Amino acid sequence: MNLVLDITNYIGIVAFSVSGAIKGIRKNMDLLGVLVLGFSTALGGGIIADLLLGKTPPTNLTYLPYPTVALLSSLFTFIFYKIFSHVQKPLLYADAIGLAAFAAAGSSLAYSVSSDVLLVVAVGVLTSTGGGVIRDVLSNEIPLVLTKDFYATVAILGSVIYYALRYLGYSDLLATTVSFLLALTIRVLAIKYKWELPRIRIES
Amino acid sequence: MNLVLDITNYIGIVAFSVSGAIKGIRKNMDLLGVLVLGFSTALGGGIIADLLLGKTPPTNLTYLPYPTVALLSSLFTFIFYKIFSHVQKPLLYADAIGLAAFAAAGSSLAYSVSSDVLLVVAVGVLTSTGGGVIRDVLSNEIPLVLTKDFYATVAILGSVIYYALRYLGYSDLLATTVSFLLALTIRVLAIKYKWELPRIRIES
Amino acid sequence: MNLVLDITNYIGIVAFSVSGAIKGIRKNMDLLGVLVLGFSTALGGGIIADLLLGKTPPTNLTYLPYPTVALLSSLFTFIFYKIFSHVQKPLLYADAIGLAAFAAAGSSLAYSVSSDVLLVVAVGVLTSTGGGVIRDVLSNEIPLVLTKDFYATVAILGSVIYYALRYLGYSDLLATTVSFLLALTIRVLAIKYKWELPRIRIES
Repeated sequence: MNLVLDITNYIGIVAFSVSGAIKGIRKNMDLLGVLVLGFSTALGGGIIADLLLGKTPPTNLTYLPYPTVALLSSLFTFIFYKIFSHVQKPLLYADAIGLAAFAAAGSSLAYSVSSDVLLVVAVGVLTSTGGGVIRDVLSNEIPLVLTKDFYATVAILGSVIYYALRYLGYSDLLATTVSFLLALTIRVLAIKYKWELPRIRIES
Repeated sequence: MNLVLDITNYIGIVAFSVSGAIKGIRKNMDLLGVLVLGFSTALGGGIIADLLLGKTPPTNLTYLPYPTVALLSSLFTFIFYKIFSHVQKPLLYADAIGLAAFAAAGSSLAYSVSSDVLLVVAVGVLTSTGGGVIRDVLSNEIPLVLTKDFYATVAILGSVIYYALRYLGYSDLLATTVSFLLALTIRVLAIKYKWELPRIRIES
Repeated sequence: MNLVLDITNYIGIVAFSVSGAIKGIRKNMDLLGVLVLGFSTALGGGIIADLLLGKTPPTNLTYLPYPTVALLSSLFTFIFYKIFSHVQKPLLYADAIGLAAFAAAGSSLAYSVSSDVLLVVAVGVLTSTGGGVIRDVLSNEIPLVLTKDFYATVAILGSVIYYALRYLGYSDLLATTVSFLLALTIRVLAIKYKWELPRIRIES
């Protein structure tokens, strides 16, 4: 993995853990529940990706730095909740970095197993959004990613960009870097201009 | 796979995608959420089955025709929702075809890995009902299959029939065809006569 | 597996099945839903553990005694619900035995694949608490294990004890036995003295 992705990956783990831990605290979970939710939000997507690709045991359960960062971030969020609950704006951008980085990393991993376009996109999307889905299901809510925001769409675009660049013959390093930067740009624009996907209004 | 199962499989994918997409629209999901829900309902059961059998990456993420049909069906449901929401009766029977076809296909796949009766039945049931469970969990509801209707029971019966026929020495082609036809018949009767399984009435 | 773990495993399967079946009955599920919930609560954690360790098809779907006991226990709970709903106290202690036994068995299985401490603990915890999480998610509730009680903490301690003993050179037999006994003791004390983990009180 290249250095850019390595650094952004850690930013993503921190941001995702904090979002999971905050959700857990708001759902009145105890310390352990908060740690589990932070851990699952940050690393659950990658674990699902590894399972789909047949890579067992999953990297996120054996490469210690990732879970260590996830658990420490969750613990800090628990201890300093008052502060974290007031810094939503920076967290939103850290989350955007994580989204873009995880999509690129997931696509890259899938591509190393098989160059099926659907597999690459599905694994990229699941790596970057699967943790948030687990967080919301465990919190007894409809996954946010399905209902609002230009969010998973960014993961799809990032994965497609990665695939297209590899298809055109570029290296993994270039493809992950460009995919990460473009996806991050799109996500930041989506936050700034409040992009939304269409939905059907129904009277129920 | 034989021709009957191949055709019925596609009918099942269409019916399951439509049911997932309709649920997504009713839960006020955006376009992407609707596509994801349609996709998961149609293909999630097969993906779980592949994971349990150690077949990675899962066929539903690498054999393009299946996801293409699932995504197009979901997209059509989104665009023509007004129409789809008024054709519940035909959808119910298309869903019955999918249920019977997926149970037979799942059982057949499991049997090719191991002839354990429990594994064959469990994989048959998960292939045919797992997608609906994912749909309902992502919609923040108790899975329909657990609470009402003579539905998963049909999948169990179909899988048991498949297993029994193979055990008696019949071919995969015959076993899948007979299992499919009998399960479909049972499901159609269950719809027509409103069969229900017993439950405990409790005052809470 | 040693004899102690073998016996306690069956006690755990019975206790977990009953807890799942009772939840299913209370959620107004039909007979099949109750059986599925009992089955998933008792065996779902072990299936997840097997998937994470790449052991497919999962033991719980191929070694018949386990699912047979789980399904029979669930069926008995369905038939004799009136009785089972009045014996919460013994069930709580049977559940404690299951928790301690499943944590030790899961840790032991993970250790046989890899001696990563995180993997051993994660698999131990998932084996013993994953079924309960599935039960609660399928019941459309926040998993109990995340919100209250000194429960998953016991699984973590049991797994850590197992790991520590193996690390110090003791045999699997001794490590599972000691881990089981200590975890059970801790859980019983936690029930008796109503231990709780800290949580953040927030005004929402």
